[in-house]
Amino acid sequence: MRAVQITEFGGPEVVVVRDDVPEPVAGPGEVLVEVARSGVNFADTLMRENGYITAATLPLVPGGEVVGTAADGRRLAAMTERGGYAERAVVSEGYAFEVPDDLDDVSAVALLAQGLTAWWLVNHTGRVRPGDSVVVHAAAGGVGSLAVQLARLAGAGRVIATASAQDKRDLAVSLGADAAVDPAEDDLTAALCAANGGKPVDVVLEMTGGRVTDQSVAALAPFGRLAFYGMAGGVAPTPVEPRELQRGSATVSGFWLIHAFARRDVLTAAYAEMAKQVASGQLRVVRGGDFPMSQVREVHAELAGRRTTGKLVLDPRR
Amino acid sequence: MRAVQITEFGGPEVVVVRDDVPEPVAGPGEVLVEVARSGVNFADTLMRENGYITAATLPLVPGGEVVGTAADGRRLAAMTERGGYAERAVVSEGYAFEVPDDLDDVSAVALLAQGLTAWWLVNHTGRVRPGDSVVVHAAAGGVGSLAVQLARLAGAGRVIATASAQDKRDLAVSLGADAAVDPAEDDLTAALCAANGGKPVDVVLEMTGGRVTDQSVAALAPFGRLAFYGMAGGVAPTPVEPRELQRGSATVSGFWLIHAFARRDVLTAAYAEMAKQVASGQLRVVRGGDFPMSQVREVHAELAGRRTTGKLVLDPRR
Repeated sequence: MRAVQITEFGGPEVVVVRDDVPEPVAGPGEVLVEVARSGVNFADTLMRENGYITAATLPLVPGGEVVGTAADGRRLAAMTERGGYAERAVVSEGYAFEVPDDLDDVSAVALLAQGLTAWWLVNHTGRVRPGDSVVVHAAAGGVGSLAVQLARLAGAGRVIATASAQDKRDLAVSLGADAAVDPAEDDLTAALCAANGGKPVDVVLEMTGGRVTDQSVAALAPFGRLAFYGMAGGVAPTPVEPRELQRGSATVSGFWLIHAFARRDVLTAAYAEMAKQVASGQLRVVRGGDFPMSQVREVHAELAGRRTTGKLVLDPRR
Repeated sequence: MRAVQITEFGGPEVVVVRDDVPEPVAGPGEVLVEVARSGVNFADTLMRENGYITAATLPLVPGGEVVGTAADGRRLAAMTERGGYAERAVVSEGYAFEVPDDLDDVSAVALLAQGLTAWWLVNHTGRVRPGDSVVVHAAAGGVGSLAVQLARLAGAGRVIATASAQDKRDLAVSLGADAAVDPAEDDLTAALCAANGGKPVDVVLEMTGGRVTDQSVAALAPFGRLAFYGMAGGVAPTPVEPRELQRGSATVSGFWLIHAFARRDVLTAAYAEMAKQVASGQLRVVRGGDFPMSQVREVHAELAGRRTTGKLVLDPRR
């Protein structure tokens, strides 16, 4: 079948479209999906470089998300460890969600890793409560653009977005952020507090790492919570002193979506809720582009260069 | 009036009982209390050494808790920054709680800093949910002995106590802990998991510091929460890598009770709830000793030496 394959780790050049990739075979608890669209995530670029949280083995077909149709006619969106950039993919029933008819393919994929991450960060890890001030870093990205809106829907009193470019900050404001800040500000702590009326903030959703994490921890109000769910900048933040957390009654949490699947019932409900919100116009999926799979290298290069905005998908038939 | 005074920082020897300490004068929002009992806390020994979270200035009357009677006849238990080891103390209304008639003096004081801390750790910072496994370090101490019971009342599935001596571990079990572990175990992570049926744990309430914190963080299950609320061992834990928290979707929180007074309504309700639980026998205050104020040095020495168990109070009239 037609699929993307990697036989060595490296930059976008190692990503090759082939027509002779072996057909995947569904085992117990799995289902074969005829793929309509493959989701592209930043994590895919890390896996391509063998820099993801878990180690990968070669050869591999990248791609952690698909939407398509099962043999029994069900329309499914599913996360998978790999194998998504392909005409057909095998997914585990435990990681598949039924897609309502009124949800388009791009949104169906966007609500998987990115939607579920944003939802969990806002409602569980960050525990956004009515009136809370919420900082969403990388607010024009797949997770961030949804998190801005979900924080608003959760009753946040003030949503402060950060993004590295003016057009991304404008996008975040158009999605409902009250203020937008450039994360490259020398004193980001002061900039975040200034954007919150001079007060420290209640919640920070952070996936950048390095000084952005450090200066965000310093911006937390008493009982403030920082949810760390990625390190897109590639630089580790300064380790956090428990004693410093005590001084501010502050919380630092990590989040990795895989753990949330232990509460599959919660995720199923969250996916269905977001699907309804998209259908009713309460939640807007930002489209980053619907590309033919033949352009996968260019898409990876754009993503790694942080030049994309919103959800990127590949069409494996083109 | 008769009170304890410190004119230089140092060991228990700097603590002196005097009969000529100036009477305190209540300002706006404050109330003068005729003290029946003064609570003694570990934090008092840190303040005596000028090693508390906030710096102290000399001379000072130590003591952060009193129970007694106001001029208008109200029976009040109150936290104060200092001045508690005295016949009379001025307390802020914002830090005073009305004491029901059926609550004895020792319990009234025990439910202040220790009770409110234990309550907040269990119900807010640690967010103990039905079925959760909960590790309570220093489980024979003032906070720990209440936290073991409050975790049980919150529906914890398994409560694992740690304490440095067998009699303290026995006490923790008598309070409802399912298992008790020596925190000096070489591999404390393994010992905590073994006490939890071989599984990592959901919640850790920790006030020791150093390797106890480090090995407790390593024992957290996915979505596990460690609440760090003190460093009695005097050794800072290893700073926590956000990336490591992400790997386990784990949380590390600090807690300092002073911040909870921003939610005075919650504390008032918590104090009243615990007072009822003590009256009904659901919650037991462990009594560490009711000492004459003249023995304050000995009490401080015992407390600093970690040889005490349960709530210690001083009677300022003796």
